[in-house]
Amino acid sequence: MESGVYQNLDNGQGIEAPANITIKGTLSLLMANTNGDDKKRVISLGIGDPTAYSCFRTTVAAQDAVVDTLRSYKFNGYSPTVGLPQTRKAIAKYLSSDLPYELSSDDVYVTAGCTQAIEMVLSILARPGANVLLPRPGFPIYGLCATFRNLEIRYYDLLPDNGWEVNLNAVEALADHKTIAVVIINPGNPCGNVYTRQHLEKIAETAKRLGIAVIADEVYGHLAFGDKPFVPMGVFGSVAPVFTLGSLSKRWLVPGWRLGWLVTNDPNGVYKNPKFVERIKKYCDICGGPATFIQAAVPLIIEQTKEAFFGKTINMLKQSAEICYKKIKEIPCISCPSKAEGSMALMVKLNLSLLKDISDDMDFCFKLAKEESVIILPGLAVGLKNWLRITFAAEPAALEEAFGRLKSFCHRYSKQQNGY
Amino acid sequence: MESGVYQNLDNGQGIEAPANITIKGTLSLLMANTNGDDKKRVISLGIGDPTAYSCFRTTVAAQDAVVDTLRSYKFNGYSPTVGLPQTRKAIAKYLSSDLPYELSSDDVYVTAGCTQAIEMVLSILARPGANVLLPRPGFPIYGLCATFRNLEIRYYDLLPDNGWEVNLNAVEALADHKTIAVVIINPGNPCGNVYTRQHLEKIAETAKRLGIAVIADEVYGHLAFGDKPFVPMGVFGSVAPVFTLGSLSKRWLVPGWRLGWLVTNDPNGVYKNPKFVERIKKYCDICGGPATFIQAAVPLIIEQTKEAFFGKTINMLKQSAEICYKKIKEIPCISCPSKAEGSMALMVKLNLSLLKDISDDMDFCFKLAKEESVIILPGLAVGLKNWLRITFAAEPAALEEAFGRLKSFCHRYSKQQNGY
Repeated sequence: MESGVYQNLDNGQGIEAPANITIKGTLSLLMANTNGDDKKRVISLGIGDPTAYSCFRTTVAAQDAVVDTLRSYKFNGYSPTVGLPQTRKAIAKYLSSDLPYELSSDDVYVTAGCTQAIEMVLSILARPGANVLLPRPGFPIYGLCATFRNLEIRYYDLLPDNGWEVNLNAVEALADHKTIAVVIINPGNPCGNVYTRQHLEKIAETAKRLGIAVIADEVYGHLAFGDKPFVPMGVFGSVAPVFTLGSLSKRWLVPGWRLGWLVTNDPNGVYKNPKFVERIKKYCDICGGPATFIQAAVPLIIEQTKEAFFGKTINMLKQSAEICYKKIKEIPCISCPSKAEGSMALMVKLNLSLLKDISDDMDFCFKLAKEESVIILPGLAVGLKNWLRITFAAEPAALEEAFGRLKSFCHRYSKQQNGY
Repeated sequence: MESGVYQNLDNGQGIEAPANITIKGTLSLLMANTNGDDKKRVISLGIGDPTAYSCFRTTVAAQDAVVDTLRSYKFNGYSPTVGLPQTRKAIAKYLSSDLPYELSSDDVYVTAGCTQAIEMVLSILARPGANVLLPRPGFPIYGLCATFRNLEIRYYDLLPDNGWEVNLNAVEALADHKTIAVVIINPGNPCGNVYTRQHLEKIAETAKRLGIAVIADEVYGHLAFGDKPFVPMGVFGSVAPVFTLGSLSKRWLVPGWRLGWLVTNDPNGVYKNPKFVERIKKYCDICGGPATFIQAAVPLIIEQTKEAFFGKTINMLKQSAEICYKKIKEIPCISCPSKAEGSMALMVKLNLSLLKDISDDMDFCFKLAKEESVIILPGLAVGLKNWLRITFAAEPAALEEAFGRLKSFCHRYSKQQNGY
């Protein structure tokens, strides 16, 4: 073998570059670190995938719709790469019901889950020397995608003491003429917050002033169970153009179905430029996309899912969030700035000064996995060192048990054991 | 609105760049050009998707397997982004049965159809200034992906008079130290050829000499119905490293299920470099990937599909290829260098000197669509001007009818109508 292949392994962009931490990578390391001899079951509060718990099963209506389209033999072939017309239409109608204007089918691109929507929007907007503003803490796939597409990442902070709102001053300070967009995630992953209409409007106005787009990750859309209702960012699409990313994954409890969307909320037509639309369409051609028969089921899924199903999920999540809030208060070394009001995750701050023999959040989570068979994500994986991300989409009994183990773990490592 | 957004629309890499022709784009233009008042049904010989014809229905075993995994409620959650372990294992076993060595599960990355496998391998290998060798004629998604990833494209010719073999001299002449790989498609799309074991070995030796990898697109794997058996390129993985791309799409007649794979056929471990493996895994994290329940069905699909199902497809395709060969001979202005022996498509050469009022292949296809409601892909869309790609995965009756209309169309435009 000549040297060419080996040379090519170092790709010049630096193979190392995208080797930052991912949630799934971290969680598998933690899982591998659990003690196989431990008789306690492993409880994972590590990932926003509640499907392991039977109380978080999707609705039969959705399942039936997919079986029907599959059995029909009509949807085994290719779909248009932008998505089936009826799927785009159904998603446009579904999202328009919360907006002051109507989306058209042409605004909707059907993707393989929200992940592919993230990949698509960053790839489409990327250009040499450009940068994108990402929240810290945030969802690491944004950073990973940006790195693969040679987009410079500039992190702005979320403000834990202001309900994890966007630090708009930081956004203004970070942006320049090479900034393509600011990413917001609402309801918030990993923070469990929900933004008010007023705050979203301020974000839109800031984006307008900076001449950038807003990428609104609403994969947890409608999963709000506190005082603040969920307001889609697209409401302010006439202030600044908004790319809305979403999916069936969370609201319908089917993350494995890989059915997501990228939607242009752009009533002023900033991105209706034919060349830009052409570029998105071409990008869809290389993407793969979701299965045709799952796409074909979407109109029925949206139409036939009863409010009671959504209500049940909301109640379960609200109850879980309450359990977390109560249990966190019982453990001195962790604290939560505010009760979770949305999504399936929250952030707690680790007070290392109260602990002995724990060097940081990673050390904490690895020891916890090994000794208590409880998996919690170190904050570092979402950009906040010495915090923890706890996913609460679990059965109440599992949550209670996990917090019980967490409490005794913290007690064991407490500097002042009397304090408990 | 400030100027930033508008400026960003021109992305500096040139939005125009990926705006080359795609098959689906061309076909929808042709479809839009058919005459709605024409009482004849539209017959498309434009795309390798036979699912419109009931004789090309997938096996009930495959359908049942997917319904079962969906109904089990076990596979509504996320899969590992590289694919479910059991799916990787089943694909490794399926492919190993034709190889002189065993693939491991770790060689297999499960993708959203072969399209995503193409996107993945080109993205993973891309680096600044690199180039990739693509066949002409070929499959346009390669060119589109390469353009999006800033990979320089160098086309080598396939030799129509040598069974569309790779022009190895051209490959040697085009390659340099910035060449990452040569792409081959076998069985051939768009040419319907099947490469001999000897020719594949020569390709591997050429790649070895050049120090590059082979990307072997085997999406039509096993769909060979002439004298030459299908031999996977991976057989020569010990000569040069091979990335094999494939899917359920064609052999199982389910292109809409989006279940494909990228497989490293690399017994010498050239690409087993941990950094490279890490890079592929990270790339999988941003991809989206196929639905978990479809992945979960793959072991059963492979195990329970009967030879009789494959045999029926092969017989149908063989019969269709025969019809094409016979009918093409009856039309003076088109000719086919050799009978199709594999895949679902073939190329015919257009002799414009025999036609009046037809300027080129595009003009031919647009007039044909308008006047005869028959859709055929202009060769330009696959890189060969003034040729035509005919997809023959259609019912015999539809094929006969389409060729009948093609014949009368050519007759109408013939310079010497007596010649018929």
